[in-house]
Amino acid sequence: MKKFTLIGAGLVGSLLSIYLSRRGHKVTMYERRPDLRTNRISAGRSINLALSDRGWRGLEKVGVDKDIRKVALPMKGRIMHGLDSSLSHQPYGKEGQAIYSVSRGGLNCVLMDLAEKEGVEIHYNERCTQVDMKKSAAHFENFTTGKMIEVTSDHIISTDGAFSAGRLQMQLNTDRFNYSQTYLEHGYKELTIPPNANGDFAMDPDALHIWPRGTFMLIALPNMDKSFTCTLFFPFEGEYSFNSLDTEEKMLAFFNRMFPDAVALMPTLKEDYFANPASSLAIVRCFPWSFEDKLLLIGDAAHAIVPFYGQGMNCGFEDCVVFDQLMEEHGDDWSKIFRHFERLRKPDGDAIADLALANFIEMRDKVGHPEFLLQKKIEARFSEKYPERWIPLYTMVTFSPDIRYSEALKRRTTTGKNHGGSDEYSRH
Amino acid sequence: MKKFTLIGAGLVGSLLSIYLSRRGHKVTMYERRPDLRTNRISAGRSINLALSDRGWRGLEKVGVDKDIRKVALPMKGRIMHGLDSSLSHQPYGKEGQAIYSVSRGGLNCVLMDLAEKEGVEIHYNERCTQVDMKKSAAHFENFTTGKMIEVTSDHIISTDGAFSAGRLQMQLNTDRFNYSQTYLEHGYKELTIPPNANGDFAMDPDALHIWPRGTFMLIALPNMDKSFTCTLFFPFEGEYSFNSLDTEEKMLAFFNRMFPDAVALMPTLKEDYFANPASSLAIVRCFPWSFEDKLLLIGDAAHAIVPFYGQGMNCGFEDCVVFDQLMEEHGDDWSKIFRHFERLRKPDGDAIADLALANFIEMRDKVGHPEFLLQKKIEARFSEKYPERWIPLYTMVTFSPDIRYSEALKRRTTTGKNHGGSDEYSRH
Repeated sequence: MKKFTLIGAGLVGSLLSIYLSRRGHKVTMYERRPDLRTNRISAGRSINLALSDRGWRGLEKVGVDKDIRKVALPMKGRIMHGLDSSLSHQPYGKEGQAIYSVSRGGLNCVLMDLAEKEGVEIHYNERCTQVDMKKSAAHFENFTTGKMIEVTSDHIISTDGAFSAGRLQMQLNTDRFNYSQTYLEHGYKELTIPPNANGDFAMDPDALHIWPRGTFMLIALPNMDKSFTCTLFFPFEGEYSFNSLDTEEKMLAFFNRMFPDAVALMPTLKEDYFANPASSLAIVRCFPWSFEDKLLLIGDAAHAIVPFYGQGMNCGFEDCVVFDQLMEEHGDDWSKIFRHFERLRKPDGDAIADLALANFIEMRDKVGHPEFLLQKKIEARFSEKYPERWIPLYTMVTFSPDIRYSEALKRRTTTGKNHGGSDEYSRH
Repeated sequence: MKKFTLIGAGLVGSLLSIYLSRRGHKVTMYERRPDLRTNRISAGRSINLALSDRGWRGLEKVGVDKDIRKVALPMKGRIMHGLDSSLSHQPYGKEGQAIYSVSRGGLNCVLMDLAEKEGVEIHYNERCTQVDMKKSAAHFENFTTGKMIEVTSDHIISTDGAFSAGRLQMQLNTDRFNYSQTYLEHGYKELTIPPNANGDFAMDPDALHIWPRGTFMLIALPNMDKSFTCTLFFPFEGEYSFNSLDTEEKMLAFFNRMFPDAVALMPTLKEDYFANPASSLAIVRCFPWSFEDKLLLIGDAAHAIVPFYGQGMNCGFEDCVVFDQLMEEHGDDWSKIFRHFERLRKPDGDAIADLALANFIEMRDKVGHPEFLLQKKIEARFSEKYPERWIPLYTMVTFSPDIRYSEALKRRTTTGKNHGGSDEYSRH
């Protein structure tokens, strides 16, 4: 039995704490925010997320998937909205395959409930100010009381997301830490499509809606309350940008021209647009992810990506699965577990970062062109006929958790070699 | 008259303070280290540096070059040492062209003396702990007294090198700050060749000596005291690495095989090798370099590069020249000066980072091959005959301060277009 300190009780931290508890370890989580369950705030800005097979596998392995299935909405494909409000459909995979819209906050609450049932302790309003890696001690400052504490444990795992405090400690206090944070020219802003007058979904709820407009796009995912959360991905600067749409007139003229059918469903567009922030989008890469057997970065703390493949959370949950397999393999050799984990997952973190960025172009531009949709149709038919010879990239990433992200990326670029399953992943 | 706070009184900070003073501004510098002039410590680990035309221009513009000329040793070319101790020569440029070995500490002392003569105030042992950018306030903690102070001024310039505290504040406190720190697999260790029994240089002092060995190298630059400072650039890990040469026997066997003629001149090799640290080599890129008109990053703080082109200091001094031209051009519009500076210099910082990394391959490998030396000879002849048609890359970077780094890099890759001077640089 080892004592673990987890920095951050978000999605990945909460799930990982369950995995660690199941193996008999004592886990304490320190979360910067108040308890989501008593203060209904959104954890971060993204209100819903797309859960796909890698994420489900992470939940299934500890048997927490059933609770989530009840509150997940299947999206079987994309529905594209043209400038003339015409619709076109593209299925994500075969019959029966779907990605699932889940509430980020709701999922986090369920995972924290389950973690506590396993004996995990969670402390809130605790900001990590420092990590003394040699001593395996984490320092926290309580937002409400101002009290500073030092927490010593056997291992510290930093599951505190893209702006990780644990990772900052690696940057400041270790030599030869490779690090990059790269921001996109685009940011995002959340808007809303409420239920219609009948209290029902205002659009088809079985799909992810996209308004692809070349250099920018609007998307919408369904929520359990029959609303849609819309996200506008838009440049910060330039002719059409968050910066340039600075009056109600300009904004409305632009939306009416670009997203006419959406505007008709957005009674609070004006309020939402000017009240909600334009948030930035960053890609974070770093290495190593560990310091001895004292500190490990997992999830977005190690590899934050852009949201365009819907894989950020899925990748983080897969981290938990891989970490669990390594605990199985290496027993109590934590140095080995940490080193193996970072060596194994770094190529996958890099691959999904590249894939997610590339998918932005596909979503905002290509899906708007009939030739592209035709190509996808042909690919789907071919793959269905000869599944052993070729699998579409989207299927490998989204519905094939046995294929590593790095393998999916490699197969995309070397199609000729695309046969058979990956034995890499099952090796650990 | 504006009040400037400079974080860091190193080479670039000291020179910049002279430029600012000459334009009538009040400059106060806060330096983390003790005063070099009373405590003879090395500022950083690199004991001597190669000063070339861009650096000289920076010194000339404020008339401080004459003091430096007296303590600078011209190196007219490279002398390569073969495994069999045979020597081959390669001139850096035409007759009369040379780069100059100067003592880093000595140069820094002269610049601080000159800065104080201009009325610049310098405080030592002051570590920057925080910058309140909105308020234009920098916080320092004194190493000896522990006292914390807040210094408010009109503008703060961060001239504190590769591990800049000012840059960290940009990373922590501004949105959309792009940043990367990338470490090489190689590190470096300093060794020494003292004067010979006659009290004279043990090798030809008119050159930079290289022992090129493919994946690693040793170099030596002459000092005023007739010693040479040698630097071993060597992998941290692997078959031949700092990590593997962990006993006197292994180290000596390796040096005797690889650098036989150098070993004969290094009586303190054993002591130096095991006493001196293996230091890391990083490339730092970031953007933006400024926050409003409050904080600006200059020199290594904005663009730290590897030392293989001998351009780190030269690039930093050129930053000062460009900044001075922009003060001339934009008068008291500091927002404009800061924005123009970062826009203008970012491509040059990126270019010299790429060139410096590429030159590592040239130095450690190519210069050891006769074909390469022959090619250089042919290029030199051609260029001498048709100077308006083609200039060697090394000459553009080292001896042609009118050609921007970014222009030199571009011309290298598009040789066909290589004619005429750059009008880019003179535009500002």
